[in-house]
Amino acid sequence: MKVVIVGGVAGGATAAARLRRLDEKIEIIIIERGEHVSFANCGLPYHIGNIIKERDQLLLETPETFKNKLNIDVRTKNEVIEINKIDKKIKVQNLNNKNIYFENYDYLILSPGAKPIKPRIEGIQSEGVFVLRNVEDMDNIKEYIKNREKILVVGGGFIGIEMAENLLHIGKSVEIVEMADQLMTPVDYEIASIIHNHCNDKGLKLNLSNAVTKIEKENNFLKVLFSNGESKNFDVIIMSTGVIPEKELALNCGLELGNTGIKVNEYMQTSCENIYAVGDAVEINNLISGQKNLIPLAGPANKQARIAANNIYYGNKEKYKGALGTSIAKIFDMTIASTGLNEKRLKAMKIDYISSITTSKSHAGYYPGASLITLKILFNRDGKIFGAQAVGEDGVDKRIDVISTAIKAGLKVWDLEELELTYAPPFGSAKDPVNYAGFVANNIIKGDIEVIDWDKIKEIENHIILDVRNKDEINDNNIIKEGSFINIPLSELRKNLNMLEKDKTYITYCTMGLRGYIAYRILKLNGYKVYNLNGGFRVYSNAKKSKKMHK
Amino acid sequence: MKVVIVGGVAGGATAAARLRRLDEKIEIIIIERGEHVSFANCGLPYHIGNIIKERDQLLLETPETFKNKLNIDVRTKNEVIEINKIDKKIKVQNLNNKNIYFENYDYLILSPGAKPIKPRIEGIQSEGVFVLRNVEDMDNIKEYIKNREKILVVGGGFIGIEMAENLLHIGKSVEIVEMADQLMTPVDYEIASIIHNHCNDKGLKLNLSNAVTKIEKENNFLKVLFSNGESKNFDVIIMSTGVIPEKELALNCGLELGNTGIKVNEYMQTSCENIYAVGDAVEINNLISGQKNLIPLAGPANKQARIAANNIYYGNKEKYKGALGTSIAKIFDMTIASTGLNEKRLKAMKIDYISSITTSKSHAGYYPGASLITLKILFNRDGKIFGAQAVGEDGVDKRIDVISTAIKAGLKVWDLEELELTYAPPFGSAKDPVNYAGFVANNIIKGDIEVIDWDKIKEIENHIILDVRNKDEINDNNIIKEGSFINIPLSELRKNLNMLEKDKTYITYCTMGLRGYIAYRILKLNGYKVYNLNGGFRVYSNAKKSKKMHK
Ligand SMILES: Cc1cc2nc3c(=O)[nH]c(=O)nc-3n(C[C@H](O)[C@H](O)[C@H](O)COP(=O)(O)OP(=O)(O)OC[C@H]3O[C@@H](n4cnc5c(N)ncnc54)[C@H](O)[C@@H]3O)c2cc1C
Ligand SMILES: Cc1cc2nc3c(=O)[nH]c(=O)nc-3n(C[C@H](O)[C@H](O)[C@H](O)COP(=O)(O)OP(=O)(O)OC[C@H]3O[C@@H](n4cnc5c(N)ncnc54)[C@H](O)[C@@H]3O)c2cc1C
Ligand SMILES: CC(C)(COP(=O)(O)OP(=O)(O)OC[C@H]1O[C@@H](n2cnc3c(N)ncnc32)[C@H](O)[C@@H]1OP(=O)(O)O)[C@@H](O)C(=O)NCCC(=O)NCCS
Ligand SMILES: CC(C)(COP(=O)(O)OP(=O)(O)OC[C@H]1O[C@@H](n2cnc3c(N)ncnc32)[C@H](O)[C@@H]1OP(=O)(O)O)[C@@H](O)C(=O)NCCC(=O)NCCS
Repeated sequence: MKVVIVGGVAGGATAAARLRRLDEKIEIIIIERGEHVSFANCGLPYHIGNIIKERDQLLLETPETFKNKLNIDVRTKNEVIEINKIDKKIKVQNLNNKNIYFENYDYLILSPGAKPIKPRIEGIQSEGVFVLRNVEDMDNIKEYIKNREKILVVGGGFIGIEMAENLLHIGKSVEIVEMADQLMTPVDYEIASIIHNHCNDKGLKLNLSNAVTKIEKENNFLKVLFSNGESKNFDVIIMSTGVIPEKELALNCGLELGNTGIKVNEYMQTSCENIYAVGDAVEINNLISGQKNLIPLAGPANKQARIAANNIYYGNKEKYKGALGTSIAKIFDMTIASTGLNEKRLKAMKIDYISSITTSKSHAGYYPGASLITLKILFNRDGKIFGAQAVGEDGVDKRIDVISTAIKAGLKVWDLEELELTYAPPFGSAKDPVNYAGFVANNIIKGDIEVIDWDKIKEIENHIILDVRNKDEINDNNIIKEGSFINIPLSELRKNLNMLEKDKTYITYCTMGLRGYIAYRILKLNGYKVYNLNGGFRVYSNAKKSKKMHK
Repeated sequence: MKVVIVGGVAGGATAAARLRRLDEKIEIIIIERGEHVSFANCGLPYHIGNIIKERDQLLLETPETFKNKLNIDVRTKNEVIEINKIDKKIKVQNLNNKNIYFENYDYLILSPGAKPIKPRIEGIQSEGVFVLRNVEDMDNIKEYIKNREKILVVGGGFIGIEMAENLLHIGKSVEIVEMADQLMTPVDYEIASIIHNHCNDKGLKLNLSNAVTKIEKENNFLKVLFSNGESKNFDVIIMSTGVIPEKELALNCGLELGNTGIKVNEYMQTSCENIYAVGDAVEINNLISGQKNLIPLAGPANKQARIAANNIYYGNKEKYKGALGTSIAKIFDMTIASTGLNEKRLKAMKIDYISSITTSKSHAGYYPGASLITLKILFNRDGKIFGAQAVGEDGVDKRIDVISTAIKAGLKVWDLEELELTYAPPFGSAKDPVNYAGFVANNIIKGDIEVIDWDKIKEIENHIILDVRNKDEINDNNIIKEGSFINIPLSELRKNLNMLEKDKTYITYCTMGLRGYIAYRILKLNGYKVYNLNGGFRVYSNAKKSKKMHK
């Protein structure tokens, strides 16, 4: 058996390695257009930022190590330029000497990945405008920025953010421009807003709801025109506005495509029996929406590759069920992560959902170093969990991983109450933030609490804001000023109930939401109309601050 | 309705608070024998160690805050000394003035906890011998150790370990004596051994497989006699040899007891309809074994309390299904955690199981700060996961939480392969340690790899140890010397196959297990008899070193 693999990084290299572990005799060839195989794409920004000091650390394997360890024939600087499905043959160009040759196969695995989108903007081909996909790109950027200062990062997804942080880390002046009104579109606005303010504190300039319309090369700098009419000068521009599947090969040889990427069945098999495809180039099932979509992330690519290899070797036995799109980014001292669908997406899909935001401590508050985690979950009355998003300084990855596992296993939102997570003071609390999320979500479903979102306060007629924090926690600058305001610390609420009016609607809040909830219960059980602020003042104040700063 | 609660800390305070949130009108009384309610038991060792600086931080609520926030009548220094089930009445003694009074109830919740075991050792009542359960104990210890140096901690469970670490942190000379041959009995020996060696590196003396037989007070010190015949002098002794349920009240009033603690049904109701019991004092279902056992931990206590409150208020609606016993401890720079059953327990229960140990990086190896996590999972051929244990410097809590969630959800061991966990270089790898654990476990089930445990090498007849690490990784002090030894780096293995003999059995290994596994595949597919070392050299060397040091 002879298996040829197109693309030798995440998906391709993994499929090759797995095949070899299954069988010593298969002939395995990897054809890779670039100079390197098996490099750590995800580490590229960090070498630019000098966090990863040695360039070599990014080169996980080389053609030599592949030969020696796995007896795989790796041909870098070779590009597959045509597939002949009928004759099971590919046409390859050696990019060193431009020679063309053919290679036949029994099975072909396509893992060509996705290339950075270069939007059609006048001047985008100018010197000083870069994308970051591979080691060459990284080398070029690293060299070019050496004596240059002002850098514009176009796009506020995770790669753009990582680039910006790393560039700032080596002393550059950095701005991110992003067409949407927020960074990290997998999360909703109020969660992203916490990051916006953190970026601001760290000196990273955000230019949201704005887009580059033109780039002009002038002498030593790039003049950038924005859609809001402004223009600014930069020394360097990094484009990170997303990726687009490399589907040309597949298209040209007549493989079926989906709306977005190469079409595969659940065995990772294309429309042609002996061609499999994996990774960023294919469209896969979204495990929650059931829709086909692109999830260009390394975890799914690796897992699909292993499954494709298994299916080639054993015959189609193993199914790839799809992905949730779990993703994460570190941003200075914070982490932002999500899994499943967000509110924007649910709305677009016209799916009924409920949102609950809880802020809780990363670990026991009395043990040093506890910080706040804000966790948003989306679910419905049947308890189905659609997704989760979290932001905080510590422990965000853990909570999203737990919820991702819960979703994958089909657990209901009330099952989150019961999860038995590790607890000692340095690690969590007797009730973990995930348990809290479950309690509150379930309370909402049962009608034991009604919450109001940070941007919906105005919609409540005749409302009074009821701040239940202690006097010493509040001042004129850190309270909610949307309608009448009154501060009664929780511990004084019962004895002051007579100050409240039954024909008003109270909106209770505290910093995290917990005291606001207890106040809610006191009012509710005493016959008042009341809402608790979803996510507490932390969410409200961050969202408002971000809106104000970026309008 | 009037609800009286016996015990005002984890379970009692939580049940009270929940009841109040359900209903403003219920009369709620907490009777607590000690001086404090709602204190952070779990934080006590850390205040002794000055990690938690302010004593006040441990006092989460006081009778006053309970009154003000929750309108709950808390009576500290009051002890319930008798329950009259028939008349629904309790007899209480005010410990300040010794007065006796009675209190009737509609519902009673027992959350009396468990008290530290004081083994029957001669001299255990001597001055300078302490247990740690509450704030008073902590205050006494903190005061007494001020000008004293040499401290013996008896018992190597998580409280003993936390105490030892904290005492060392404030400059004391500390020794732990433990009857078993290991610390942290919820994990198996080889996992604990990594901690043994870490303690040794940190200057914490371990005295394993030994027990205190007698304590003699001499002048200013305590002379301790051990079961191995030795004796040593200490200034202070901290007993942390486990806890025993406070079941006397229940017993005396005729409530049914189980083998270990107070008997409750799945609604947390005792044999008497209107008495519920929760927390350390009750025996609950082990979710995996189905057996009744004690799980004296804060998470379960809190959750049971909330359920008991719900069931009192709504009528028995909510079931507590049981616990896995997920637990964790920080030990200097390391973390050790587990969930479910361990190998010792499975053996004792005569359950067929398979063990797989994988060592992998806490996050992408090329990103700074990655450390090793050793993860052991126990499962069977049907894919059922019995338990997991992990040890490492970082990210141990996350992996055990994910597996705990998976077990709770009934996922199979192969489902771990597919979990879609957050990945960016600072947080994990495209294949997370949990995914690896799934791959390897499933490989074992399918027969694609056979592993040999660190202590079973000798049992393999005619074996040859095959170290596949690179030459520069090994020296005479860090290799396995149990039978013939040969080193062929993985990358040179194929071309040296002719050096190997078909009538021998090879035991392959590397540091973490991955290269050993690839070597295994090469040999296996070429017709050799072979095993891979379970957990790699990391596990082997730690276990052996620990055995040697503590024999
Ligand atoms: C800067 C950066 C940071 C990232 N960070 C993360 C992260 O933190 N977490 C995460 O989950 N994901 C991250 N990713 C995404 C992740 O790297 C991809 O999802 C993953 O690499 C996809 O694997 P793949 O095999 O589909 O494509 P790739 O890894 O891109 O490999 C495809 C290869 O195919 C080659 N190729 C294409 N066409 C041909 C042809 N015709 N002939 C020969 N060779 C061809 C290409 O040269 C390319 O090297 C990051 C990506 C980048 C660029
Ligand atoms: C030092 C220490 C560290 C710990 N660390 C952790 C950890 O890191 N993680 C973890 O999960 N668990 C930890 N625990 C265990 C955890 O604290 C317990 O599981 C939990 O507190 C049990 O709750 P409970 O309500 O059953 O008992 P407790 O919290 O002990 O409360 C019982 C209370 O009832 C009172 N009482 C008993 N009898 C009577 C009576 N007749 N009348 C009136 N009052 C009575 C007692 O005085 C006591 O205050 C730790 C415990 C200790 C002591
Ligand atoms: C480097 C690369 C070739 C490795 O591929 P791989 O060999 O499939 O993956 P790993 O090195 O993680 O090894 C996984 C194998 O080792 C096994 N394994 C892992 N840890 C083990 C352990 N401790 N003991 C035994 N076996 C172990 C796994 O079971 C798996 O084998 P299987 O698939 O046959 O079951 C590939 O991941 C790659 O090219 N990566 C770079 C590109 C990339 O992934 N980018 C995105 C992230 S930056
Ligand atoms: C302090 C103590 C009285 C608190 O008990 P509690 O009020 O039940 O618990 P919490 O303060 O965590 O609050 C939980 C409640 O707030 C709600 N809540 C938590 N975060 C919220 C948020 N962000 N928004 C809205 N509601 C929130 C939860 O839903 C829950 O309410 P519910 O049970 O009515 O659904 C009790 O935990 C205690 O005494 N602890 C000390 C002893 C102990 O636990 N020891 C072991 C660990 S050291």
